[in-house]
Amino acid sequence: MTAASNFSVQALQWTGHSLKVLDQRQLPETIAYDDYQDAAGVTEAIASMQVRGAPAIGIAAAYGVVLSAMRHYPGGDWQTRVAQDIEQLAASRPTAVNLFWALDKMRALLAAQPADPIAALTQLAKQIHADDLAANLAMGERGADIIGEAKAVLTHCNAGALATGGYGTALGVIRSLHKRGRLQNVYADETRPWLQGARLTVWELAQDGIPATLIADSAAAWLMKSGKIDWIIVGADRITANGDVANKIGTYSLAVLAKQHGVKVMVAAPSSTFDFSLENGDSIEIEERNPKELLAECYLHDGSLVNAWNPVFDVTPAALISAIVTERGAVIDPGKHGVRSLQTC
Amino acid sequence: MTAASNFSVQALQWTGHSLKVLDQRQLPETIAYDDYQDAAGVTEAIASMQVRGAPAIGIAAAYGVVLSAMRHYPGGDWQTRVAQDIEQLAASRPTAVNLFWALDKMRALLAAQPADPIAALTQLAKQIHADDLAANLAMGERGADIIGEAKAVLTHCNAGALATGGYGTALGVIRSLHKRGRLQNVYADETRPWLQGARLTVWELAQDGIPATLIADSAAAWLMKSGKIDWIIVGADRITANGDVANKIGTYSLAVLAKQHGVKVMVAAPSSTFDFSLENGDSIEIEERNPKELLAECYLHDGSLVNAWNPVFDVTPAALISAIVTERGAVIDPGKHGVRSLQTC
Repeated sequence: MTAASNFSVQALQWTGHSLKVLDQRQLPETIAYDDYQDAAGVTEAIASMQVRGAPAIGIAAAYGVVLSAMRHYPGGDWQTRVAQDIEQLAASRPTAVNLFWALDKMRALLAAQPADPIAALTQLAKQIHADDLAANLAMGERGADIIGEAKAVLTHCNAGALATGGYGTALGVIRSLHKRGRLQNVYADETRPWLQGARLTVWELAQDGIPATLIADSAAAWLMKSGKIDWIIVGADRITANGDVANKIGTYSLAVLAKQHGVKVMVAAPSSTFDFSLENGDSIEIEERNPKELLAECYLHDGSLVNAWNPVFDVTPAALISAIVTERGAVIDPGKHGVRSLQTC
Repeated sequence: MTAASNFSVQALQWTGHSLKVLDQRQLPETIAYDDYQDAAGVTEAIASMQVRGAPAIGIAAAYGVVLSAMRHYPGGDWQTRVAQDIEQLAASRPTAVNLFWALDKMRALLAAQPADPIAALTQLAKQIHADDLAANLAMGERGADIIGEAKAVLTHCNAGALATGGYGTALGVIRSLHKRGRLQNVYADETRPWLQGARLTVWELAQDGIPATLIADSAAAWLMKSGKIDWIIVGADRITANGDVANKIGTYSLAVLAKQHGVKVMVAAPSSTFDFSLENGDSIEIEERNPKELLAECYLHDGSLVNAWNPVFDVTPAALISAIVTERGAVIDPGKHGVRSLQTC
């Protein structure tokens, strides 16, 4: 995908007339792509977690808008129909702001295209995709500069090439550290209930020749107590103006535990992850998915007294984060400084 | 099993000439017992986690010694052979001290039986079993007295009837609170990698009509932050003289998080869980199980760069525990007071 990585499996491939989406629910057993030719398919691919990861769903949604325009233009009501498709795409998942950011960009461009919008929309979607890859490469280097050297780091969920336009956010920093010979080992949380760590992260790292050690989510504190890790590195689904970070459920837990164990926490995320419209993380909508994602293990019958609570994100206060790294720069100690310095518009 | 509980599935059933062991690996889909007539079978049942839970493996091991005596007595070298079987039983799992406690009791009795030991050993094993059930009933009441009333509690792994001689340690306290009408909801961690919370605890609670809500292990901190739980209640595999507690991996994590969120932590365990030979938890042997228990989710090939670290217990410092409850009494704030007051011999 890039000279900086041997990892060649791409989450998203634009064919010029369709979006090929890697079905990440089947990884790592099976590498299979579905080919979507309309926005409804892309919406479903996002909602069902065929494609996941905040930057990747933003990119997928942008291509979804292109497919919508291709489908509806030049029909008489094409603008209305594309606007409807955009609403559907926006409703696919609630927490990652990159989705809304990408759709806002596409919507703004669309408003400026009274005639055939397809070429311009295609160019913008490809630009969003390429920019994300470039951002990850830049973040990888910047994050590695900040860390310098680590005996081991821990990562959570999958913030890798599979979650982005390529190279990854958290895994981008890990790739850059490894490339420099400044990282001995990577621990990866399994990340229940979808097991993105077990199914995606360790597989992705292995493809690049980076040794990884899988742990149960609940072993992270015991790992920290052992003194084996220096940093926790994660991605983000939304970062508010004060530096609060929404990310995969369990990130908040890791950050509280890290503070108690003298382990540092780095969040790596592109600028598209920032939501300066929200002062802090209290107002981020946290997606709760179907309890069945947990209850599947219980083999319970309907009408059972057993329920499940399945929030799939949580919010980590800025004060628990050591560094937030973007392609535009980094903030050390965002709990003191906020992240307004990273705002450009 | 007892008037205090409708839960009728017993982990262990002594038939008079064999030990029927519920295969907990098949729960809750299938309720199936294996019938063991020698110590080797019981050893394997413990090592393979067919039976699990510190008190239950102690009881199983005691019956294993009876089966060994039945098999070898009155052969010429029966004492040597029974001693060998005891060594095998002792090597089945390293962390829970109840196993060694029960074997020590059986060994001491055996040394005092120059002639046919079977009746005496049988009586002692049955006594150990009955005492454990009685201890759980007492702990349930005592723990409920201490808690008084709770809107909700969180438990980890399975410290229930399935892990004990009946009624349960942590779930015993929960049963007693529920019976008093003083508990609105029980949250249960899934407890990777064996999912004892998902497969055993919520099922066991449902059998007794106690509503339970399953969560991913990594959601516990977010649950605490929501203010929904007042107490975490867990069992123990070993408690040292200073009050440090070895228990299922993730317990330490919960205790650190609880301290940060103003949630109290109760450990309920019978006296057989105490190891006064160890000053503190640093010298407890922590079992690490096969990495494949985690790697099974990865579908990796041999020779992969991916490894797993699979400690199945951790140690929680006494200072993080609000109360340790036994059948003999309780210690509030064991970090200040230690647990020597609970020592009787």
